[in-house]
Amino acid sequence: MTTQTDATPPTEPTAPSDRSSSVSTTRGRRPGATPAELGIGMRFSIHPHTDAFVDVILGALADVEEAGLAHGLVLETDEVSTYVGAQEAPAEQRLADYLTAVLAAASRRSGGGHVVAHALFSRGCPGELACDLSVTGLPDPAPVELEATGIAAAAQWSLYPLLDGGDPDDHMTHIEEAIAAAHRRGTGASPNHYATKLTGDVSEVVATAVDAWSQVGAHVPHVVTHLTISVGSPSQAEG
Amino acid sequence: MTTQTDATPPTEPTAPSDRSSSVSTTRGRRPGATPAELGIGMRFSIHPHTDAFVDVILGALADVEEAGLAHGLVLETDEVSTYVGAQEAPAEQRLADYLTAVLAAASRRSGGGHVVAHALFSRGCPGELACDLSVTGLPDPAPVELEATGIAAAAQWSLYPLLDGGDPDDHMTHIEEAIAAAHRRGTGASPNHYATKLTGDVSEVVATAVDAWSQVGAHVPHVVTHLTISVGSPSQAEG
Repeated sequence: MTTQTDATPPTEPTAPSDRSSSVSTTRGRRPGATPAELGIGMRFSIHPHTDAFVDVILGALADVEEAGLAHGLVLETDEVSTYVGAQEAPAEQRLADYLTAVLAAASRRSGGGHVVAHALFSRGCPGELACDLSVTGLPDPAPVELEATGIAAAAQWSLYPLLDGGDPDDHMTHIEEAIAAAHRRGTGASPNHYATKLTGDVSEVVATAVDAWSQVGAHVPHVVTHLTISVGSPSQAEG
Repeated sequence: MTTQTDATPPTEPTAPSDRSSSVSTTRGRRPGATPAELGIGMRFSIHPHTDAFVDVILGALADVEEAGLAHGLVLETDEVSTYVGAQEAPAEQRLADYLTAVLAAASRRSGGGHVVAHALFSRGCPGELACDLSVTGLPDPAPVELEATGIAAAAQWSLYPLLDGGDPDDHMTHIEEAIAAAHRRGTGASPNHYATKLTGDVSEVVATAVDAWSQVGAHVPHVVTHLTISVGSPSQAEG
């Protein structure tokens, strides 16, 4: 498998999908598969470190629903995490808005206490175990735009370009570009074992990870990123 | 890059490392790089959903230290997570013992309350941003052996064979084998979007993920797995 570049527009039809989905209005240069066909979505869990965690979580989810931020998304909650699938473009913007708003609402509802969110963003494998690896017409979405939350975060971030053709140089190039972008944005604090540490407003941290993930996804069909975001930590306050 | 198989023993020297490390006693068939040279380790965070989270976390870490389970490991805690690097074989056994014991101790100290652990296990990139991708002499460690904790867990598990030669068939083969092994063990509950759901004793869930990660690591130089383990969840009790 070779990576797509601007010089090689897709020549195959978009991958079939058994999911219903709206017509894509992806803002990218290469219209192709819809967000649902590309499997653009996330799983997230939220961890308020308080006895009132059930009320905080349910309240935060209700706040975000009421704000209309679940529009264009499919949500399925199990006992470990919540799946959020983007059904309509702009997929990345919807996911980033949703995660940022849920964490900010949980932080507010816990009175600024310690809350951690863990999110896995994925694109390129819409199904469950098996996935169609022949998707072409990769989108090249615009960077997300998020309002500042006023909440300072520290995060741990890992980016995995999967199925990038097996060239180690390509592999590291994508990761190095993403980390350089984080530095330009001001969130790229420091490399760390197995992950990069990000700091900044919750919105900046989320945007850093989502933009890197979607931009690698313009060249690599299957890309996953994991982001652990911590707010209100006692050790954060000390540091 | 081609994947290593038993038929093609390594012909290059092990990768250099600037870290001190003991002589490897890896139980694998192919002695080669030490755990530290291979970068075998994890980052983990633990989330007790209680007002007493600081005492629960510090107490659990102290319990595990007192039990001697930090031996052969290097620990570095920052404001988001703790890095645990294996310096001595059996690396996978030490990491699995440590994570299982910390989560069990946190569960006990929170009176069986809701505690979530998130762990990222990595091998093949010992450094920070850059990593030496020419490591050869991949170990093929024995499965880990963990005592049952008596604590039921539900988990979300993702396995990423990175740098597997870029062959999509290889890529999925490794993942399918790992999921089949989880089913044989009895923890492989169900596929889910972007992750596999595991259920069982904390020790069984940890062993499923660690064994899959180390066994793919016998063929693919760089392998990462993410595991989110939930115990004492109200929704778990309902389900």
